[in-house]
Amino acid sequence: MPDLNEKAAQNLSAIRAQKPLIHNITNYVVMNYTANALLAMGASPVMAHAQNEVEDMVAFAGALVLNIGTLTDDWIHSMIKAGKKATEQQTPIILDPVGSGATPLRTDSAKKIIAESRVSVIRGNASEILSLRHAESKTKGVDSIHSVDEAAKTATVLAKELDTTLAITGPVDLITDGDRVLRVKNGHPLMGYVTGTGCTATATIGAFLAVDEDPLSATATALAYFGLAGEVAGQHAGAPGSFMIQMIDALYTITPEALEAGSKIEADE
Amino acid sequence: MPDLNEKAAQNLSAIRAQKPLIHNITNYVVMNYTANALLAMGASPVMAHAQNEVEDMVAFAGALVLNIGTLTDDWIHSMIKAGKKATEQQTPIILDPVGSGATPLRTDSAKKIIAESRVSVIRGNASEILSLRHAESKTKGVDSIHSVDEAAKTATVLAKELDTTLAITGPVDLITDGDRVLRVKNGHPLMGYVTGTGCTATATIGAFLAVDEDPLSATATALAYFGLAGEVAGQHAGAPGSFMIQMIDALYTITPEALEAGSKIEADE
Amino acid sequence: MPDLNEKAAQNLSAIRAQKPLIHNITNYVVMNYTANALLAMGASPVMAHAQNEVEDMVAFAGALVLNIGTLTDDWIHSMIKAGKKATEQQTPIILDPVGSGATPLRTDSAKKIIAESRVSVIRGNASEILSLRHAESKTKGVDSIHSVDEAAKTATVLAKELDTTLAITGPVDLITDGDRVLRVKNGHPLMGYVTGTGCTATATIGAFLAVDEDPLSATATALAYFGLAGEVAGQHAGAPGSFMIQMIDALYTITPEALEAGSKIEADE
Repeated sequence: MPDLNEKAAQNLSAIRAQKPLIHNITNYVVMNYTANALLAMGASPVMAHAQNEVEDMVAFAGALVLNIGTLTDDWIHSMIKAGKKATEQQTPIILDPVGSGATPLRTDSAKKIIAESRVSVIRGNASEILSLRHAESKTKGVDSIHSVDEAAKTATVLAKELDTTLAITGPVDLITDGDRVLRVKNGHPLMGYVTGTGCTATATIGAFLAVDEDPLSATATALAYFGLAGEVAGQHAGAPGSFMIQMIDALYTITPEALEAGSKIEADE
Repeated sequence: MPDLNEKAAQNLSAIRAQKPLIHNITNYVVMNYTANALLAMGASPVMAHAQNEVEDMVAFAGALVLNIGTLTDDWIHSMIKAGKKATEQQTPIILDPVGSGATPLRTDSAKKIIAESRVSVIRGNASEILSLRHAESKTKGVDSIHSVDEAAKTATVLAKELDTTLAITGPVDLITDGDRVLRVKNGHPLMGYVTGTGCTATATIGAFLAVDEDPLSATATALAYFGLAGEVAGQHAGAPGSFMIQMIDALYTITPEALEAGSKIEADE
Repeated sequence: MPDLNEKAAQNLSAIRAQKPLIHNITNYVVMNYTANALLAMGASPVMAHAQNEVEDMVAFAGALVLNIGTLTDDWIHSMIKAGKKATEQQTPIILDPVGSGATPLRTDSAKKIIAESRVSVIRGNASEILSLRHAESKTKGVDSIHSVDEAAKTATVLAKELDTTLAITGPVDLITDGDRVLRVKNGHPLMGYVTGTGCTATATIGAFLAVDEDPLSATATALAYFGLAGEVAGQHAGAPGSFMIQMIDALYTITPEALEAGSKIEADE
């Protein structure tokens, strides 16, 4: 594996040079913030969800971001249509299974999307990710995980089962493609007080997937960059309103050099 | 009635300790701001509106917030479904009848929600609230109210008719459950220049209803807290963009002690 | 033509005095920002899209803003219904054909809206505007325009064909009603890094149309005002998060006098 802090810098430079179009079918709550974050980092966001348009739109995209935060059956149908087209074209797809595990509609919808398209990355918290297990899965439930090591082992097994890269974000982010395991230690506690930071992390991974063919390194470098933006924001703001604005500023002002210096990506042995 | 300024502090402490889940079925314009406000104060927002999900979601909620700002028949149907389930479970419901009185769809939809579920609190401006009268109501119309005393009398009659607590917000907020009348004098003129401050006040009442069984005191203390956040924001910002960000910051930084000291809740004799 | 910098000041004063209701049927991404911008400038925004409500709502409006950014067939149907009613009442309509030319759904929907109502102004970038040509149009495509003079000539021909006022925004905005051509040189590069600045420029034109009967001068003065807000914001902010907040502040703080002094509107000879 190349040096990932260096790779983070290269990916950010590539986004700013190529300005990839990121097609988002996402939730109402975070659309504005996500679009502003993508613009600030140098990507080109588009939000489009009509069933008679998503295939045309995804055809131009460098990555497809699917987020079920305010799902209905109609929107899921659009996500699946877009996902199939993206799969056909080999456009990377990232799924954010917001609230999967909390209601049957969310769990079922997330599983349906995974079943019907080739999802490169799934990002969520631990319980969202573990809710995606098949009935016959060998992975443990959230409640039965008592250590960081157990979490890594469980995620590795599940990534293999789902044949994708998983990103379980939290104070330390865990990323695995079933073989390799990476941890990202960037971030700031105020990120938990801003709505849609998880969703925006997902969109950021989308932008990195558009310029980096390896889902594992794209995901880890994106999360290091997004977490570093939180750290920079935390130097300027002590409450969530100012913090969320400073995060957008930081996504714009962080240079590739600063990212290389500030990334905290570690590989498990 | 206990000291309400003290009660305000207790309620805010309880929200921060319990982090109640607040289920919002609200309008597109304010979803992001409302979610950020709820997070900043210490609550856990969720936005979910699918007809095949709202009952599952409201089952976890400490309060249900219904807001008809960008209504369609489908969304009203979801609100009614969620409202019935919340009523069954005795989960408090607060309704924001945005624009009721302006168009038949809004007035009819608000009345339908009230008829089909047990709404604990309705918050709106004077004309929205008065549009909810039944045909045979004895309450006066907005145009026939010429003094603060008349407004209080009218609201008291209407609260009894609708068997709920009413909050008519404005420079001074008037809250009544048909028996008691409270006034809250916190607030700042720039709140009128930020979209969704009314809607966010409603969501704030939702969070307070989740920790305070008395709708009257929950509503008055929530409005004192929200208005105080406006006052604090107004000390730091002189225009609406900065002001709306400072309000989110203030919702996060105001301590229970500061709230007790700054609340301006008064009871009519 | 009267002095347009003076006219800009008069229009802004009129908005603040009359607080016209601006009915927006717009996209999810920008609803909040657009509403805040309209409030900050002194107008009254309303967002309403239900097919069984739009005619009732537009009846109160000083202008109707139609924006196809996150369109579906249902929303387009509502736009057409509202557009017909506005046409009947001679309420000015402004269309923002977001992404027209990128997908068939967008191009067809924009053309349908234009065909079925009397649109006073269409604002977009060059490729969006040129995508609206009829099959038999004499206007050139985007790729065949090689100079500012050619762009002006093309826009003039197209404005006549569509019988409307066109605003092609960019570093310099070009506005024409088919006879006259105006250019507005206000603006700031960071506007391109905030989502929905184009959409919000459109809504701003909506507010100016509500107080100025001449679509050409309403559009040019609105764009001068909006661009000046960008310039003021750029004096206080160097990155897009802070910048978008400062823009809202500037829309609120710019006085008619400052607008008259700062407008950069020029007429082609």
